[in-house]
Amino acid sequence: MCIRLKAVLVIADGMADRPLKELDWKTPLEAAHKPSLNHIAKTGVCGIMDPISPGLPPGSDTATLALLGYNALKAYSGRGAFEAIGSGVNVLPGDVAFRCNFATVDNNLVVLDRRAGRISNEDASKLAESLQKIKLTKHSNAVFLFKNTIQHRAALVIRGPKLSTAVSDSDPEKIGEKVSEIKPLDESLEARLTAEILNELMQKFREVLKQHPVNKERIKHGLPPANIILSRGAGTIPNIKPLSQKYGISATCIGATPLIRGVCKAAGMKLIHVKGATGTPQTDLMAKAKATVQALKTNDFVLLHVKATDVASHDGNIKQKIELIEKIDSMLGYVLNNIDLGTTYLAVTADHTTSSITKNHEGDPVPIAITGPYVRRDDVEEYDERTCAEGGLNRIRGVDLMPILMNLIGKTKKFGA
Amino acid sequence: MCIRLKAVLVIADGMADRPLKELDWKTPLEAAHKPSLNHIAKTGVCGIMDPISPGLPPGSDTATLALLGYNALKAYSGRGAFEAIGSGVNVLPGDVAFRCNFATVDNNLVVLDRRAGRISNEDASKLAESLQKIKLTKHSNAVFLFKNTIQHRAALVIRGPKLSTAVSDSDPEKIGEKVSEIKPLDESLEARLTAEILNELMQKFREVLKQHPVNKERIKHGLPPANIILSRGAGTIPNIKPLSQKYGISATCIGATPLIRGVCKAAGMKLIHVKGATGTPQTDLMAKAKATVQALKTNDFVLLHVKATDVASHDGNIKQKIELIEKIDSMLGYVLNNIDLGTTYLAVTADHTTSSITKNHEGDPVPIAITGPYVRRDDVEEYDERTCAEGGLNRIRGVDLMPILMNLIGKTKKFGA
Repeated sequence: MCIRLKAVLVIADGMADRPLKELDWKTPLEAAHKPSLNHIAKTGVCGIMDPISPGLPPGSDTATLALLGYNALKAYSGRGAFEAIGSGVNVLPGDVAFRCNFATVDNNLVVLDRRAGRISNEDASKLAESLQKIKLTKHSNAVFLFKNTIQHRAALVIRGPKLSTAVSDSDPEKIGEKVSEIKPLDESLEARLTAEILNELMQKFREVLKQHPVNKERIKHGLPPANIILSRGAGTIPNIKPLSQKYGISATCIGATPLIRGVCKAAGMKLIHVKGATGTPQTDLMAKAKATVQALKTNDFVLLHVKATDVASHDGNIKQKIELIEKIDSMLGYVLNNIDLGTTYLAVTADHTTSSITKNHEGDPVPIAITGPYVRRDDVEEYDERTCAEGGLNRIRGVDLMPILMNLIGKTKKFGA
Repeated sequence: MCIRLKAVLVIADGMADRPLKELDWKTPLEAAHKPSLNHIAKTGVCGIMDPISPGLPPGSDTATLALLGYNALKAYSGRGAFEAIGSGVNVLPGDVAFRCNFATVDNNLVVLDRRAGRISNEDASKLAESLQKIKLTKHSNAVFLFKNTIQHRAALVIRGPKLSTAVSDSDPEKIGEKVSEIKPLDESLEARLTAEILNELMQKFREVLKQHPVNKERIKHGLPPANIILSRGAGTIPNIKPLSQKYGISATCIGATPLIRGVCKAAGMKLIHVKGATGTPQTDLMAKAKATVQALKTNDFVLLHVKATDVASHDGNIKQKIELIEKIDSMLGYVLNNIDLGTTYLAVTADHTTSSITKNHEGDPVPIAITGPYVRRDDVEEYDERTCAEGGLNRIRGVDLMPILMNLIGKTKKFGA
């Protein structure tokens, strides 16, 4: 066939939810006004999908790896490297990378706010600039790169001989708990050395932050000071085959979140910067829709990722989650109106369920709908967790999605004769 | 239980399809008149099935391996050996076998017709007889067996010390492209030797075919001459446990296609020759139905394979595909009327989707229905790709089908206590 078929995959982070008492036992998706999502369900084939496997709550990184067709259980090499490469920090083989938070602790190192009041990008940049000037003295063989990304988020890369990812997190991941000393997680020399380097660095970070004018200013304005860096998710760059090799496609990612950008970069995808796309509930989804339509002109596959729904869920903000689903719906309306549905497949899903009650990622399946020229349209007319379960895809796994899409656009190879 | 339960598995090659504009967005199965298929769906349990895995377009060989309960990804050892043993050519361990085509090329070895006008069995037999007389001179340690099977299809087996399957195909698999020289695909001595033997053989085949009276006669009658042999799919006999050992059953295959007969033979099944069963759209399906009923008297399991639906799909002949589905339906009517449904399970499926538009195998799932005394009958009343998706089997994989059938007839062993 000489027609070039294309596919768009829209991932709304944590959009799936559980039925909520506050919504008369509807889910936010069920409660939202969503004509475009319903149109996709009605003209498409629907189902539910376990991002990794039934009951397993995935991270956004592992889920996105799976949704791009990789065996996440094998390929995942820790969050840190994704976060770093997604923020434009170069991670080389042998480097160990960490996801970091600017956070607020009291004098006894007890965590008061894990996100330092969701510190602004501006304040975080000034602090990061000062931190990057620090020199390691006890372990002068090693160097580090530190970069703030969005709000309280940052990436740290340690580079040097004999490093290991077998080190514990300093982030206790709970308010009211004390910041942990970083410990080697095995008996190796490498793990001990890496833990020592990190502890030296965290101590020096703390000293600089405590005295920093930005924090003095924050305290003056009643804002929690970003007086510590919490680290977690030691990782190396994963050894995965790029999508171009796997399927012979040109692929682009439109997403603001460094973690997701990192996964996509590891998969060999191009990354597009969209002005106004911030990964926050204030993100400009229409700008992303336009960028998606544009990117489709020169790519076989475009991944459009929206972080905001997950942020609302982690905050337990049900009203905001519904509003964001409705904003996503408008974004999809633009995409539907501006792509050629005679040659383009459009799939919409979430990377995982995030419960607005537990405020955590959960292992419940997510809805999936695929519309496009030759799908086996089913009877489903509404896009939500329960109605999609009645659809023609039945129940698939995240790792199946990419082969299904690539099959529809003629990019899978026959196995056998 | 002292009643001997039995199972029939009917595989209609490439019967599943996608919705077609030409059929008002129905699939050929949805458009066909098929009372018997619907009866099986109505009295049975239905579902959809990924022959290998979602999105992966299977060959008929890999799909049939999977449908017989083998892990095709592990067990598959190339098409050639199946084709050869299915044609009655003996393949021994160490032999390398190839699927071949009689084809038509111009003087520059550019392929004009990959099937030499779907040459008749009669003409192909005469040509094959002459080819078999050729002697290898440069590599006199090796011998070969060449046998035509159906129409343009043939099998070639190379026997000798130090052979390898790591050789490329001479068949470019596209009209208008030049026939390829056969090359070793790795650095081994064996691969180089095998490529040399094949190139010598292909050269000698070409010389004999060019001068052959059958081809002179064909040209006189305006038919494309079969003036070259194209080879592909180097393979060895697979190392799989026969069904008799796996499940303790006696099993028979009723199918005309050498490739399928070969897979069944490799699985230790008996092969029945049915007069009038040709693997073409003109095949005598009623004769196959009668043979199936007969074979059931002395076997626990009978596989009834119909190739014709796939042929129609590869030709993009939608009308013929529908007619063939209706012929299969009549065939199933005979089977239903002549087996004891109190003791026999009957399953009907396709080995893969073949799109009448792309004319290729596709990775979309296939419908499956199983009727018989103790199935959990569901609400599905029609046998097609979309309605079956609403059935009680939900979505299974090809490799699950045989254990499901063997469980129904009491041939699976308890795992655990």
